[in-house]
Amino acid sequence: MSTLKDPGLASLGHDKMNWVRRKMPVLNALRDRYVKEQPFKGQRIAISLHLEAKTAVLAELLHIGGASVSITSSNPLSTQDDVAAALATTGVEVHAFRGANDEEFDQFHQHVLDIEPTLLIDDGGELTERLHSSRKDLARNVLGGAEETTTGVTRLRALAGEHRLLYPMIAVNDADMKHLFDNQYGTGQSTWDGIMRTTNLLIAGTTVVVAGYGWCGRGVADRARGLGARVIVTEVNPVRANEALMDGHQVMTMDQAAPYGDFFVTVTGNRDVIRPEHFVKMKDGAVLANAGHFDVEVDVKGLRAMATEVIPGRNENVEGFVLPTKQTLWLLAQGRLVNLAAGDGHPVEIMDLTFGLQALSLEYLLNHPLEPGVYPVDPAVDRWVAEIRLKALGIEIDTLTPDQEQYMASW
Amino acid sequence: MSTLKDPGLASLGHDKMNWVRRKMPVLNALRDRYVKEQPFKGQRIAISLHLEAKTAVLAELLHIGGASVSITSSNPLSTQDDVAAALATTGVEVHAFRGANDEEFDQFHQHVLDIEPTLLIDDGGELTERLHSSRKDLARNVLGGAEETTTGVTRLRALAGEHRLLYPMIAVNDADMKHLFDNQYGTGQSTWDGIMRTTNLLIAGTTVVVAGYGWCGRGVADRARGLGARVIVTEVNPVRANEALMDGHQVMTMDQAAPYGDFFVTVTGNRDVIRPEHFVKMKDGAVLANAGHFDVEVDVKGLRAMATEVIPGRNENVEGFVLPTKQTLWLLAQGRLVNLAAGDGHPVEIMDLTFGLQALSLEYLLNHPLEPGVYPVDPAVDRWVAEIRLKALGIEIDTLTPDQEQYMASW
Amino acid sequence: MSTLKDPGLASLGHDKMNWVRRKMPVLNALRDRYVKEQPFKGQRIAISLHLEAKTAVLAELLHIGGASVSITSSNPLSTQDDVAAALATTGVEVHAFRGANDEEFDQFHQHVLDIEPTLLIDDGGELTERLHSSRKDLARNVLGGAEETTTGVTRLRALAGEHRLLYPMIAVNDADMKHLFDNQYGTGQSTWDGIMRTTNLLIAGTTVVVAGYGWCGRGVADRARGLGARVIVTEVNPVRANEALMDGHQVMTMDQAAPYGDFFVTVTGNRDVIRPEHFVKMKDGAVLANAGHFDVEVDVKGLRAMATEVIPGRNENVEGFVLPTKQTLWLLAQGRLVNLAAGDGHPVEIMDLTFGLQALSLEYLLNHPLEPGVYPVDPAVDRWVAEIRLKALGIEIDTLTPDQEQYMASW
Amino acid sequence: MSTLKDPGLASLGHDKMNWVRRKMPVLNALRDRYVKEQPFKGQRIAISLHLEAKTAVLAELLHIGGASVSITSSNPLSTQDDVAAALATTGVEVHAFRGANDEEFDQFHQHVLDIEPTLLIDDGGELTERLHSSRKDLARNVLGGAEETTTGVTRLRALAGEHRLLYPMIAVNDADMKHLFDNQYGTGQSTWDGIMRTTNLLIAGTTVVVAGYGWCGRGVADRARGLGARVIVTEVNPVRANEALMDGHQVMTMDQAAPYGDFFVTVTGNRDVIRPEHFVKMKDGAVLANAGHFDVEVDVKGLRAMATEVIPGRNENVEGFVLPTKQTLWLLAQGRLVNLAAGDGHPVEIMDLTFGLQALSLEYLLNHPLEPGVYPVDPAVDRWVAEIRLKALGIEIDTLTPDQEQYMASW
Repeated sequence: MSTLKDPGLASLGHDKMNWVRRKMPVLNALRDRYVKEQPFKGQRIAISLHLEAKTAVLAELLHIGGASVSITSSNPLSTQDDVAAALATTGVEVHAFRGANDEEFDQFHQHVLDIEPTLLIDDGGELTERLHSSRKDLARNVLGGAEETTTGVTRLRALAGEHRLLYPMIAVNDADMKHLFDNQYGTGQSTWDGIMRTTNLLIAGTTVVVAGYGWCGRGVADRARGLGARVIVTEVNPVRANEALMDGHQVMTMDQAAPYGDFFVTVTGNRDVIRPEHFVKMKDGAVLANAGHFDVEVDVKGLRAMATEVIPGRNENVEGFVLPTKQTLWLLAQGRLVNLAAGDGHPVEIMDLTFGLQALSLEYLLNHPLEPGVYPVDPAVDRWVAEIRLKALGIEIDTLTPDQEQYMASW
Repeated sequence: MSTLKDPGLASLGHDKMNWVRRKMPVLNALRDRYVKEQPFKGQRIAISLHLEAKTAVLAELLHIGGASVSITSSNPLSTQDDVAAALATTGVEVHAFRGANDEEFDQFHQHVLDIEPTLLIDDGGELTERLHSSRKDLARNVLGGAEETTTGVTRLRALAGEHRLLYPMIAVNDADMKHLFDNQYGTGQSTWDGIMRTTNLLIAGTTVVVAGYGWCGRGVADRARGLGARVIVTEVNPVRANEALMDGHQVMTMDQAAPYGDFFVTVTGNRDVIRPEHFVKMKDGAVLANAGHFDVEVDVKGLRAMATEVIPGRNENVEGFVLPTKQTLWLLAQGRLVNLAAGDGHPVEIMDLTFGLQALSLEYLLNHPLEPGVYPVDPAVDRWVAEIRLKALGIEIDTLTPDQEQYMASW
Repeated sequence: MSTLKDPGLASLGHDKMNWVRRKMPVLNALRDRYVKEQPFKGQRIAISLHLEAKTAVLAELLHIGGASVSITSSNPLSTQDDVAAALATTGVEVHAFRGANDEEFDQFHQHVLDIEPTLLIDDGGELTERLHSSRKDLARNVLGGAEETTTGVTRLRALAGEHRLLYPMIAVNDADMKHLFDNQYGTGQSTWDGIMRTTNLLIAGTTVVVAGYGWCGRGVADRARGLGARVIVTEVNPVRANEALMDGHQVMTMDQAAPYGDFFVTVTGNRDVIRPEHFVKMKDGAVLANAGHFDVEVDVKGLRAMATEVIPGRNENVEGFVLPTKQTLWLLAQGRLVNLAAGDGHPVEIMDLTFGLQALSLEYLLNHPLEPGVYPVDPAVDRWVAEIRLKALGIEIDTLTPDQEQYMASW
Repeated sequence: MSTLKDPGLASLGHDKMNWVRRKMPVLNALRDRYVKEQPFKGQRIAISLHLEAKTAVLAELLHIGGASVSITSSNPLSTQDDVAAALATTGVEVHAFRGANDEEFDQFHQHVLDIEPTLLIDDGGELTERLHSSRKDLARNVLGGAEETTTGVTRLRALAGEHRLLYPMIAVNDADMKHLFDNQYGTGQSTWDGIMRTTNLLIAGTTVVVAGYGWCGRGVADRARGLGARVIVTEVNPVRANEALMDGHQVMTMDQAAPYGDFFVTVTGNRDVIRPEHFVKMKDGAVLANAGHFDVEVDVKGLRAMATEVIPGRNENVEGFVLPTKQTLWLLAQGRLVNLAAGDGHPVEIMDLTFGLQALSLEYLLNHPLEPGVYPVDPAVDRWVAEIRLKALGIEIDTLTPDQEQYMASW
């Protein structure tokens, strides 16, 4: 029933799933409860997320909780075929393989929607887009869903703003236990993991230019410094520029920074942040990487157009562009998310938090019927995830004494 | 007309004012405009703030902008008499001296209100309290005011919640350019400046226990690490506890942390955060300091009550308490704000941002008549302060291209 | 003439060599000179080093400088077959393939010695050992050589101490531009690169136990902190223990540290640093990695013996050992150097420094005939490498004025 | 018998001595033994050191150990008169007051030598200079001494080089437990303590130029970064320049750095490191401080000569120099050691290490009669101090197992 590259890869996939399962205390705590309570009994859940081991454990968890689950990948390059094969053996329906073309990619999503979902987990709005166009008939079954990314949430808000959103969606991305951790510490580590393994270059003593000082940018900048680099931040927001400065980084325009960078990392959420006018000012050998959602932050088209020659790098994730001005710039992972396309994505423990919020948000929708609209994660859910993580780590924190509670309330 | 300790100290006070004026680009930019525009012409401004050089420059600025200004100190111990004397020579009315008793402290505030203010700058609600009780008749003149502290804002919100607030107040504390900088970087530096100059003790290699991981707590913890300490954070909020952990600190309860700390710094906004049950578990020689608003975070009364002996420290800002359990604990600045009571408060450049927000918020009130209530700082004001600071530092940032603006709006 | 796995892999190997060549300014500066001067004309150079792209560029350089060069790998697992194939096309003789057995490994070294070397580059003493036993007849041709590692230098000193060393050897390992950089920044980065890519685990918020606080240990500890971990150091030297403490780390015995560590990294140069008595005290899920020279720092045999079960990890570089005490410990890369066995070794720019010292030390031997013995690198060579690197980075430094020179000499 | 400013200040001085005594575990451990063993019985010890509380505790200790002790200050500005008065009540002879003129300063040293010393503790060679000129007759009594500073050691080596040194001197400065700690962590913290308390300026977000990257320079640079600054290092040594770079700092010439610095700190041991040609390129408001031994690192004479006006700063430790190029530069503490002249010198715990080495080195001289010459501290002494400090902190470290000892010796 599943669509897979090779069911024979399941054994490798199980190894990967076993590995991550051991480092996901939040999902494990939920599993213990779901086995007994079966909260999703009778529900049909459609999922579109990057399909690798951590995601597989989430899908399996919802199935264990009583749901019928059908899943595909939100990006044709992020599917790990061995994991997909392993997941398919657990009772979850899987439609995905790495390197699907556009038509196959769409077809997978259609198959997943064939389950006639009552609940959704979406990444960038792939499922919701189809439920509001070609599969509109299915929307009436949907009790609600949860969205993973900033991009998806922004899209949902636009839809809701035009009163066209057909069911309630919870903005998991905006929860404290998501963006403070996933965006900051997750992106920070996985970006540099990806860059180091791809290039074998030294970070200490180099100059790293980070475009954007939101939560992701802070994480990338902080880890760059932790690896011994000097950091230059570019921003369009003057408050954030001041923060970057106070954190000990230099702040300048991309135009000014271009000649100094050994590494450039874009994390802005915008397009064409590094453009031909900047490329020509860069040092020979500068490395360009993107850790923002889409592959438009570095103007790859512009770079390709102006290059007099394209030369191979150390491996398939590095490409050299020789400019008319003679220097060679090295683009990583074709300007796509360097941590996913040239690495393994966020660390396991980070996704445990994010996926805990996902599962609990679906449960919340079952227990709290909502009008169509975009909703924040219930603060109690955020807090519960935070508490479970502390507990798993054996960490205790203080509680307010009655006197202290009264003092705080007495103003 | 002013009430001063000694007008003869003015010369020293002018030296201090000259010094800080050179490092306040935001106030300087305002001065250039105020000289010409006289925005406060005809206004009468009452101020209650810690009266030292930075505050004096703010008061002078408003006077230069056309206002009649009368000022006192929001804390009887934070007045610097030389600065008060200098300020009184500039045309500002001053009522303050260091070490005023309770009656004098109240009388100073009454004198300041005698100006029949149209605008207020308040710290902790000292002026507003009186304008809502003994001086209620004067409230009708008040166009509005601005409040400096978290504590004051919380009080104002309570008053407004009971529909008793008689004029609009702007919560300067909540502006980005205030709490992100003043609370974090200001408190972080000045707390350790105060501790080091008071104790001459080594920070590197010690264990610092920071109670509270809000913006102030982060600043204190980050600087402690920057000075070579290992940091333990205590919290009551599990999300913040997770953040502290991810930032590389240890997290535990105060009860668990008590035996490890060489220095304890409280920044919670709550009371009795360190109590007798903790004192008895501490190491001989542990140092206790508070950097939160009030002197109740360390239970000083409890400490004093249980001590078998009180011994002198290195200077008047260190006191040793010998416990029945034999160890001696050293309390700094009697548990008051260690950065103000045993130091010079926040660095100049930080107060430039905060006071820029103050002046602009008063201007805003003149141009935008508001109903009674508590209002956020206008985002344009926040942004303007951020921009002026960057400009003063010679820092340029990027601006969105039309294509980028469209891209950001296109979801 | 070369012994290779597959000459057809040369193209991939050339890509790798091209990549690293661009980031090796010291070797590039030497190449420019060697092409003209041919300093090694008539020399025959035997090399035993980890055979990957950076090493290949060194071998090629010496060949370009006029020498006949024959090379093998100092470790049967560190050969990259594509690089070996590429190097063989440049005129260098290569005898190596990945996964050679003990007999093949020895045979490769014998082949390399068949060149009847006049100069040597050795790693751990593999060539020198054979030149002092089975190939003693060839030693009389040897003008001298250079040794790469601490281990090799220690062995050479023992040999020289017994007056048995037959030619002069230069201790490249001990040069400032080697151990300060290779050992500290090289090991620091490559160890964490290896651990992150192998495990996909989060470093931030974890506790890392670093055994040993020499130059390597400092690097590993500093980068761990830079990635957000709390660090515990174990040492046998009380001075170093004090340094670790002052650097903000905790210091304790391995016995005390065992229950706290999420990651353990050994960098001591000693054996059995982590033993069964420690294993049983560790947390379930703890990760064990070694970044010291040999695979004896973690007592792998002891671990294997006590395990009730061995389970697969996420990939072939992670193995799980289930203990009678129920917890599972994860061993990376079988306890071998995690940065080489599960990564790409040191960053390119680091090896540029080390290999620059190697080439220049061989040149030095040609120009300065020496008695048998162990010699430090000429300080002028150290300084020259430092200067070339600064120049390549476009960095200028100050020079003493005549007055300053006189002042420094005047005591 | 003592020469004091005011014996009535003794009470304040005792408070200070009590304070530091509690944080000096090494000296306390020695005191316990000295009380019983009286190792210095019959000895006469002359001391010239900065005379403040930490030094007083050392002098008292030697007296407790059986010696007659006479002490003066090695710098006329570093005497604390209250401490001098307190010390004089303990049986130690004191000749010092703050602000002594040149003649008085010399006279104090002559008085101290009148004790006819058998042992010396010297700082910068003040006693030795006189014992080799006007008081040559007393040299024959001297069993030996210990020297505190790099400067003094260099002088002694020059004297010994000319075969003119008349007794053995131990170079305490060169011990691991001295320069790794005192120079690095001591200077690092106390320099910024001094700068912050003197200026009340913000460090975060500024650019700090550190001249010199020896142990002192590293400490100053590292703490600057820990306080949120960006650091530029200037050096004359290319190896150190590379180290500074790898540590994440920028490296350039003073000429290039001049326009960027908000703070300049000299720690080179040389003269005229910042000169008129640099002053004219600096930003308006730049702050100049010295943390090297002598007040010649900043060319204060040159600065004074070129200034068109000298203006008062915030207090007596800040002086403004208006240049013909219009900017004002602020010089701290007249270019003298900013941590001593505008602060309290090194933290207590640091001096405990240094003074422990001093006392033990004198003991060593008693038990190991030596020829005239300059000697390193006995490694066993270094190790003992390291161990005592760990023990005082309750820290245990590992010891080698017999197998490990054998393994280390087996090459």
